[in-house]
Formats: sequence, structure tokens, C-alpha cells
Amino acid sequence: MLVLGLRSCSFFKPSSFRSFSSLINTTMVYSKAQPKEKSKVIVFGAGNFGSCLASHLGDVQHEVYMWAREDKIVKYFNLHHRNPLYLPDHAFPPNITAIGPELPNKEFINSVDVLLFAVPTQFLRSTLQTLRPALDVNNLPLLIFVNKGIEVGTNALTLEIIADTCGADIAKASTFISGPSFAKEIGAPTVVQRQPTSVSVASLTEFEATKASTLFHQPHFRCYTGVDPIGLELSGALKNVYAIAAGMSDGLGFENNTRAMIITRGLSEMTCIGTAYGASPLTFLGLAGVGDLFLTCSSSNSRNYTVGYRLGQGEKLDVIIKTLGSVAEGVPTTKGAKMIIEELGINAPIANSVYDVLFNGKDTRLAVRELMELPPSKELELPPTAGGPARRLMQKLGLSSDSISELMHPHL
Amino acid sequence: MLVLGLRSCSFFKPSSFRSFSSLINTTMVYSKAQPKEKSKVIVFGAGNFGSCLASHLGDVQHEVYMWAREDKIVKYFNLHHRNPLYLPDHAFPPNITAIGPELPNKEFINSVDVLLFAVPTQFLRSTLQTLRPALDVNNLPLLIFVNKGIEVGTNALTLEIIADTCGADIAKASTFISGPSFAKEIGAPTVVQRQPTSVSVASLTEFEATKASTLFHQPHFRCYTGVDPIGLELSGALKNVYAIAAGMSDGLGFENNTRAMIITRGLSEMTCIGTAYGASPLTFLGLAGVGDLFLTCSSSNSRNYTVGYRLGQGEKLDVIIKTLGSVAEGVPTTKGAKMIIEELGINAPIANSVYDVLFNGKDTRLAVRELMELPPSKELELPPTAGGPARRLMQKLGLSSDSISELMHPHL
Repeated sequence: MLVLGLRSCSFFKPSSFRSFSSLINTTMVYSKAQPKEKSKVIVFGAGNFGSCLASHLGDVQHEVYMWAREDKIVKYFNLHHRNPLYLPDHAFPPNITAIGPELPNKEFINSVDVLLFAVPTQFLRSTLQTLRPALDVNNLPLLIFVNKGIEVGTNALTLEIIADTCGADIAKASTFISGPSFAKEIGAPTVVQRQPTSVSVASLTEFEATKASTLFHQPHFRCYTGVDPIGLELSGALKNVYAIAAGMSDGLGFENNTRAMIITRGLSEMTCIGTAYGASPLTFLGLAGVGDLFLTCSSSNSRNYTVGYRLGQGEKLDVIIKTLGSVAEGVPTTKGAKMIIEELGINAPIANSVYDVLFNGKDTRLAVRELMELPPSKELELPPTAGGPARRLMQKLGLSSDSISELMHPHL
Repeated sequence: MLVLGLRSCSFFKPSSFRSFSSLINTTMVYSKAQPKEKSKVIVFGAGNFGSCLASHLGDVQHEVYMWAREDKIVKYFNLHHRNPLYLPDHAFPPNITAIGPELPNKEFINSVDVLLFAVPTQFLRSTLQTLRPALDVNNLPLLIFVNKGIEVGTNALTLEIIADTCGADIAKASTFISGPSFAKEIGAPTVVQRQPTSVSVASLTEFEATKASTLFHQPHFRCYTGVDPIGLELSGALKNVYAIAAGMSDGLGFENNTRAMIITRGLSEMTCIGTAYGASPLTFLGLAGVGDLFLTCSSSNSRNYTVGYRLGQGEKLDVIIKTLGSVAEGVPTTKGAKMIIEELGINAPIANSVYDVLFNGKDTRLAVRELMELPPSKELELPPTAGGPARRLMQKLGLSSDSISELMHPHL
């Protein structure tokens, strides 16, 4: 059910309307205050996005430690100030030190202001399990997560993985960054002028979101805050499914109108899934939703788009995966999305088609033809009931299940 | 104010919650029922989009008359079945006859099932004034409008132009089509396979929207219905302003991240303007919003994008307009948008920048730098009060100003 712009309703304020922050204030753990000038940051993960964010933070004079799981990368980086695997032409700022392959110890963790996690979703649970004993809720660094995906097996979002491994208090203080940001366009040295980029920064409280925004924000790296981390995470994960669909359409030889249709109808599906899950539909209008969907669906720089494109050209999935050279998160995410769609009873024909092409050997041309032959329909019918999975997640966070209503109308 | 997913609110149904259809049922004029097989259609306008829609309707066996304002085009078309100015390589179906330059008489108008208006917004008022005496509300053809723009001088949307010229009854029965649809990709003969396209079809009642959808819908031309014509019109018009901005960014040499940022922040501005105007924010998530924005902002086929691109490359507006060869609706729309933004008190920095570049000679690079240097902010703050202009329009249509609330939550 949806009520918009209903001014006459403003007197109607049952208990579920208390501000979300006030609801959780009593038990809330906050991350430590950041120094005015220079934060000390550990970036976990030396992949494409991790390297690029480390570079951005180093560039604006923070003291950055980039953890890599491979000894040879750590040694190479500290010798040459380059990452041999990602952005190999990029000279990193001198104030970045590589660490690893052991995870940093408790003393070091407690000395830093920020922990930034840029590890793939599928490795996050084990990383956090190992780190948990080193975290002190009374001296908690600002925790920022930039991975995008749904955990295989559990279908958990990152917020849930954090709650499972580190407890509700730490999960509630965590922040999430997502948005249209190809790593190679952020401050690579071959680009004389930095490419302006912008991202969404979300946390359950505006307070924590603003801390992460302040850390990252620059004229060429704009941060916009919000309080719907579930919507931000879902859109970041689901958009990769639709990037595969858009690539498939292009690979089959269809043109701009068709791609625009797939992106827009995909956005409509994402929004329905998100609303039924318990997120705000408006989050999907933002940088982590529409913005990242646009970017990912319209560039051969995207691995997920490329998987779809090559499928459209007739290649087989196993061959594509073998030769891609890096992970296309959309492939496992499509499996997780399929399970969520079925649990929620959502009509999501594009995601279902991508699933059938990836995992049931369906012909791409037949999949597109079947999508075209669906009967005409209303443009956007948001599901009438909402919030089952998010409600379960709120309970895991020790929050009233009423608070899901608040999560869904952050603009009230 | 925004209330989403509030299940406990369902008992709260003040009078403004009556269904919009039931509210206007008593005084409603409907267009005539369409024949099962073949409708008789007049398409006013033989421009790019008019020609393409005439071709689509002819292709699916409707009896189509395409009105052109120039005698030589009428004669050429009927001799060669080609339009010399638009889609010149396209052989039109034989069941399309060109008519004009006189407007069809009352008898002919009364014999047809559909009037499709594909004339530029700036000529619509005079066209409708001339046609009005021929229209019979008791035998009303289905009226479909596909122009996109804001009338210069009045800032009126098409719905208001219809109300002014033809009266409230005819305006309430009118339908509107908009969406990501480059004319040359719809059924051009050089493309062996038609390019799948999809559009939004809106009217104040689902009943009329469905009639227009049924007329047009094909597997390769998918129609999605909605009941927010104000949102559909605003998004169709405003997206051209942001296409100029996206073109400007590309013309200045910025890359994908930057374009994705401009598109997404532009969408956020459009949604704020639309919400304050009185439209549903969710309409901007649809094909006429996001879909058309995406298409228009990412292709040099778009005239508005091209205007921006050439400005970014340092050309002067008057030179660009002189050499463009066709109208870029975004230029006058930026003027109208600026006035609406000021009236509503909306924060719309991108639209304001485009205005300053177009009409105040502002340097494009300075405009972009100033946008980048804006302070960080929340991602989407919908304006708290809403609906002034739409409320005035509802009054013009003889509808209760309460009905604006209903227009804004079609999914209730």
C-alpha cells in the first residue's frame, strides 16, 4: 500500500512514526569521532574498487593501510607504489602502505579511525568472523562496506552478515557506499583531470552516514547520504542481474530503444523486489539504484554487461566465466535474486529470464521473444504487502519490527 | 510528506481517498469504443515521431490518415509512400494516406476513431482551437497526444492546453504517450528485425489509457498504462533539460561516472519538481521518466544531447540552433522549467546551470565546477508541500482539489 503527499494525514502519528533514530538511540553504539584533518584508515581488499578508494583517501591526505590477501602484492605495492593486478598504470599516493597477508591485530585495529571493507560478499563472513575479537564496541572505528552482492547459500545482505558475525550493535553503526563509479575513472593518473563521480552513503542513522560522507566527499567525489541501507544494498546487488539482461539485448543486436526498455523495466522489477523486501522504493531512484544501473548497463567496462553480451552473441556461460579474468557478481546474485523473488511472490520476468539463460540453458533469443510477448500491463504496481525479509533483519538487529515502516519513509 | 508501506493506515480513509475514477465518473465524458479489428486514425503531424507512429499503426492494419501542414509533402507522400523529410528511406505501409494542408472537416473528424496529435507543443493550442468546433463530446474520438514540452509564455502542459481550448470534459478523456522511443528504430525497413520499444500510456482514468494501449500494443511496441498524465508530461518535457546537461558533460570530455551522476541527480531534481508540482514521484521511475532520460542522455541521436555536447565543445548557442536542422525542445523547455522551479521554490542546481549556460552566457566549465563544489547533501529530499500547479489544473478540469492526492498515489 502506498500513500503519497497526503497532507491531511499529518496528524495521524501512531507509535510506529517515532523517528528511527530516537527509536534506537537508547541502545545505540556509535563509531568513534573522526579526527578533523586526517583519519587513519584500513582498506580491506586490494581489488579494483578497494585500490581505487584507497587511492582516493590517500590523495586527500588520510593515512591509509591497504590490506591484501597475497604476500607478493603487499611486497610489490610497498616497493613500487603500484598494484600489479588492478589499475597497473596508476601511481598510488605515498601515504598508502600495503599490509597483509595476515589480518591486522587488535592493537592496530584499535588505533585506526576507519575500517573500509572492499572484499567480495562471498568472503565477507569469514573476514568478519576473524576480525570480530579485535573490535571494541566502546572504541569502534567507522565501519564502511562497499561490496555489492547477496551471499550464496544464505541470501543474506551485508547488513545481516555483519549482525551475524559482529552482533546487532556493530551492524547498526555500519555504513554502506554504493553508486555509479567505475574504478578506473576515479583519479587514475593517465586522466589529467579527475572524472567527477558521485555515490550514495547509507546507514541506519543519518549520523553515521554523514561521518562516512565527510571522510570521502570531495568536489570530484560527491557523497549523498540516506538512511535505507537495505535498499542501497539490494539495488547494488540486483542491478548486476539487469546488466546481464541489457548486455544480452545488445549482444543479440537490439538497439537503444530496447536497452532503454530493459533498463527501465528492470528498474521497475528491482523496485518491486525492494519494496516487498522492505526497502524504500525511492532508494531505487538514487545513485545506488538508477545511477549504477545506467552505468553498469551501458558500458562494456562492466563485467556483468559483458557476460550478457557474450551470451547474446551465442557463447556458453562456462566458457565466458573461464575467460573473463575476474568475477561477475551478477551470476551468483541472479541465483539469490531468484530465491528472494520466489519467496516474496514478485512478478519479475526479466530476472527470471536471466536465471533461465544462465542456469537452465535457455536460448537468449527465445528469452527475449517471450519477454516481448507478455501481455500489456500497468506500468508500476508496487506489491501491496511489504517487508518480510527486512522485518526479520530488524528483529536480528534488536529493533522493533515497526521500525521497518520508518525505514521505508525516510522522507517523512 | 511521504508515507510508504504503512499497513496500519489502511483503516484511515477520509473522503479524499475515494477512487479517482469514481470521483469523476458522474461527469465523465469517454471517447468512443474502438472497433475490434481496425481503427480509423488521423495522425496530426508528419514529423519524425508522427511519421513513425503512423507507420506503426499502418503496419498493424489500422486505416491511417497522416495530416501534414505542407502541400508538397502531402503530394509527395501519396505518390511515393515516403516522407521526404523524415525517415526518407522508409517505405510506408500502403494503408496510410497523407492529407492536408487544410485541417480535416467536421464530417471526417466525426467518422474517425482516433485523433493522434504529434505536433510540437508550441503549435498545439492553435491546432486545437481550429479543430474544437469539429469535436462532438457525444461521439468523441480517442484523443492521443505525443508532444513533449512546456508551452512558452503560459508554462502550460498539454493537459492544460486541451482544457483551455476544448474544455474540461475533453481534457479528462485525453491520453498521453511518452517513453524511450527513437523514431528511426521503430519499424524502419532497413532494420530487418523491428527494434523492440516500449512506452508509457497515461490518462486520468485507466479506462482511457487502456484504450490507447490496446490500439498501439504489439510484441515489438509494448505499452504500459498509468493514471498520472501530469507526471508523464513533466518527465517528458524536463528530461530534455537534463539531456542538454549530459551532452555538455560529454562535450567537455568527462566520462561515464560523470554522465551517470548528471543523469541520476537530474532524475532527483525532476522528481522533486514533479512532486512539488503535484505529480507522483513514482512516475519518474517509469518509461517516460528514467527510460526516456536514459535514452536521451546517452545518444548523439538526441537533438537536446547534441545541443549540450556542442556547447561543451565551446560552440555558441545561436550557431548551434541555426545549424541543427531541427527543433531542440529542451531549449524553450529550460525557460519554462526555470519559471516553474522558481515558483515552487525547488532546489534544482543542474536545471539552473543549464539555464545560465543557455541564456546568460555562462561558461560550461565554470557551470560544471560550481555544481561539483556544492556542499554534500541528503540524496533525495522530496519537497514537503506539493501540488500547487496541479491543483490549479484540477480546478480547471472541474475536479476537486482533493483529487490531486489521488493522482499522487495511483497504487493505493
